[in-house]
Amino acid sequence: MLDAKHIEALKEIVGQENVYSDKAHLIAYSYDATRTRFQPDAVVFPRDEKDVSEILKYCNTHRIIITPRGAGSGFTGGALPTQGGITLAMEKHMNKILEIDMENMVAVVQPGVINMDLQKAVEAVGLFYPPDPASEQYSSLGGNVSENAGGMRAAKYGITKDYVMALRAVRPNGDIIRAGKRTIKDVAGYNIAGILIASEGTLAVLTEITLKLIPKPKFTKAYMGIFPSVEAAMNAVFKSLAAGANPVAMEFLDSLVVHAVKEKLGVDLPEEAGALLIGDVDGNVEQEVSFQLEILERSFKENGAQEFVVAHDAAKREELWYARRNASPSITIFGNKKLNEDISVPRSMLPKALTRIYAVGNKYGFKVPCFGHAGDGNIHVNVMLDNPDEELLEKGHHAIQEIFELVVEMGGTLSGEHGIGTSKAPFMNIAFNEQELALFKDIKNAFDPNNILNPGKMGLPN
Amino acid sequence: MLDAKHIEALKEIVGQENVYSDKAHLIAYSYDATRTRFQPDAVVFPRDEKDVSEILKYCNTHRIIITPRGAGSGFTGGALPTQGGITLAMEKHMNKILEIDMENMVAVVQPGVINMDLQKAVEAVGLFYPPDPASEQYSSLGGNVSENAGGMRAAKYGITKDYVMALRAVRPNGDIIRAGKRTIKDVAGYNIAGILIASEGTLAVLTEITLKLIPKPKFTKAYMGIFPSVEAAMNAVFKSLAAGANPVAMEFLDSLVVHAVKEKLGVDLPEEAGALLIGDVDGNVEQEVSFQLEILERSFKENGAQEFVVAHDAAKREELWYARRNASPSITIFGNKKLNEDISVPRSMLPKALTRIYAVGNKYGFKVPCFGHAGDGNIHVNVMLDNPDEELLEKGHHAIQEIFELVVEMGGTLSGEHGIGTSKAPFMNIAFNEQELALFKDIKNAFDPNNILNPGKMGLPN
Repeated sequence: MLDAKHIEALKEIVGQENVYSDKAHLIAYSYDATRTRFQPDAVVFPRDEKDVSEILKYCNTHRIIITPRGAGSGFTGGALPTQGGITLAMEKHMNKILEIDMENMVAVVQPGVINMDLQKAVEAVGLFYPPDPASEQYSSLGGNVSENAGGMRAAKYGITKDYVMALRAVRPNGDIIRAGKRTIKDVAGYNIAGILIASEGTLAVLTEITLKLIPKPKFTKAYMGIFPSVEAAMNAVFKSLAAGANPVAMEFLDSLVVHAVKEKLGVDLPEEAGALLIGDVDGNVEQEVSFQLEILERSFKENGAQEFVVAHDAAKREELWYARRNASPSITIFGNKKLNEDISVPRSMLPKALTRIYAVGNKYGFKVPCFGHAGDGNIHVNVMLDNPDEELLEKGHHAIQEIFELVVEMGGTLSGEHGIGTSKAPFMNIAFNEQELALFKDIKNAFDPNNILNPGKMGLPN
Repeated sequence: MLDAKHIEALKEIVGQENVYSDKAHLIAYSYDATRTRFQPDAVVFPRDEKDVSEILKYCNTHRIIITPRGAGSGFTGGALPTQGGITLAMEKHMNKILEIDMENMVAVVQPGVINMDLQKAVEAVGLFYPPDPASEQYSSLGGNVSENAGGMRAAKYGITKDYVMALRAVRPNGDIIRAGKRTIKDVAGYNIAGILIASEGTLAVLTEITLKLIPKPKFTKAYMGIFPSVEAAMNAVFKSLAAGANPVAMEFLDSLVVHAVKEKLGVDLPEEAGALLIGDVDGNVEQEVSFQLEILERSFKENGAQEFVVAHDAAKREELWYARRNASPSITIFGNKKLNEDISVPRSMLPKALTRIYAVGNKYGFKVPCFGHAGDGNIHVNVMLDNPDEELLEKGHHAIQEIFELVVEMGGTLSGEHGIGTSKAPFMNIAFNEQELALFKDIKNAFDPNNILNPGKMGLPN
């Protein structure tokens, strides 16, 4: 519980109407997409950067724990106030697109802006913000930067970090830090923006984000490759890319997911379809689109594709994408509880990685449907459990542990885009050795010596 | 002077033949491209990462200062052993391309590999490493990463940091750190690679670099726009880019440089040419190249270009590029000493920035020819002095100070690609406030609490 005098002090900083400690608010801000719950002691809505600075300074002095929160859509618990303290919520006031600078092709936003709101605003003026996490309709850009969110278009366009040009942020001691510039090149001083990206709210609180925009390509077409097996599809992924293809997206559905979308949604696919690759290609000229489709068709067929389908109109494009977009809800036919991990491996390792992941599933008796962003090596691995009791859940976690171990052994990572937070923290020692974990602690300590910002996340000390 | 017992200890680590403290070696390793000289007390050539780790551990224990060194081609003194101690030179042993992984399109190199050697090796197998600093023929990739080198192709393809996928590095305490993966997405743990890039050898010593490669575009054409004035050319830069052009390079020569290349090289240009934009466009298909050239031609002419020339063959391309490639040596007609700074501003600020830079030159009576990477906002500003005495040099530095002030005021940076090192250290307080400089110190201290790695660089304490 937070002492009443602290609540009063916070109200003096941000105003009466921006601090809440009533039951309803505490419950409303206790969750994220992990579906676990931890109540904060108070919810505070800063109005601006100055508020953030004063709140942090106060909390740092009084050792009050702060959990920064965007939209609460994270999959790994980054916004969960696991130690109580205050939740610093950006959604109420710090949610404005401050500027779209057409001349320099950048957008300046506050951290609470929803990803899709920015996408729409910039597309309205002919520009393009590529990062498109599956949560794009509701996740905030502050959260996207803090987790370094990916998405489907990463295969061609990269991830959030590739678009962050500058940040403003507040250190726990209240210092306001400007990092980066509205310039493509800037090598003066340490790359502070670089270390804040993906730091999961543990180093500083973001108050302003400057994002690179690019011209919107004029032509886009969707494609689908139908393969007899997962292995054939996975070979086609890295071989088509190595042959020069540069698709916007190259999404993967494995045999179980193909079965699920047929079964649950009645998607019309060939009987023998064992795996799908679905994506878009784009270009400024139609010939670039054709060039891309030719490489894909050739490489896919060389790797055993039974069919290569191109959507020549919007309706067909929707049809091709339908199966992918509904992959996640469809796989509930295998169980009502999924342990959903977003591993990533070097693309050439995809065939072997999936073989080994299925073997782990078989060993434990779990179905493990996999789908996701094969074009960048990032696969959503779902260990499916049905009405699991404690024992089954425990078994599920053992399976996840084995999957992480094989992924890391193959040069992959615990997380391609979801972050570590609380849910992957127990696995950090699979991916990092003692020296590396010690460096993380030293960096945390350099920014936040009193450990008030989101403590206990990413395997860092409570 | 380094105690003889330390020299002996270092010889035990790396072998007799890899430690030198004779006069010839100390002189040979005393310089970089700043043309200032500081002798180390010894030059050590590590054979591998284990050597680096043991040397650092030893030096950390005995508080011996270490200056890491790639090719010594830096413009800001990053590789100068200003405090003596040992120079850790990568060029002798740690200079190998370890792997070109075609399937995942990455190269793994040691830090001493010369940039152009990598470019050639990957182009031989149809791949492309875009970062092309002007020093590409002799600068090392370790130096490129440490300074976050840019180049001409940054307008389309970005800079070194956009290609670093993973690093291995050694902390001053000897800890070997792996940062990043051979995967496009990786959000597990702090972005250590992000903070090591551009850290100028002050945080850790790089031992291995994994770089992203891309498919080599099939078609390239060069273009030149001839403008009546610098202002017209500068407007054309950001207006053509905002109109959707995505040139590989968009290089700029101002009126003084145009005069210099005509005068010194006899380049044939129209009498009234006041500024040039020169660059390449590329694409996988010819129509993409045409698409780019059409946007450029239209935008350039809308902004007053007198001529727009396209090179349709290699000879013509060489001819168009000739003036740009010889800009730097040509401007010596204005003086035998240049103060060469690589400021960068948001592109829309280019016209105003240049007007103000010339005004500073006029005020002091200096010619200030400018050229460089206009397409990414990065301009090489040359304050020209002829046989300067102390007083004139001092005046030159005042002019530079004023230029940095106006650049920062316009949202620009002290350095687009050269780094800070020693030569720009006195100007750090123009660009950063006390809080930001304090954060840099805290980060330095987290990695290197005994301040043995390249102390005194980037405005950090000696």
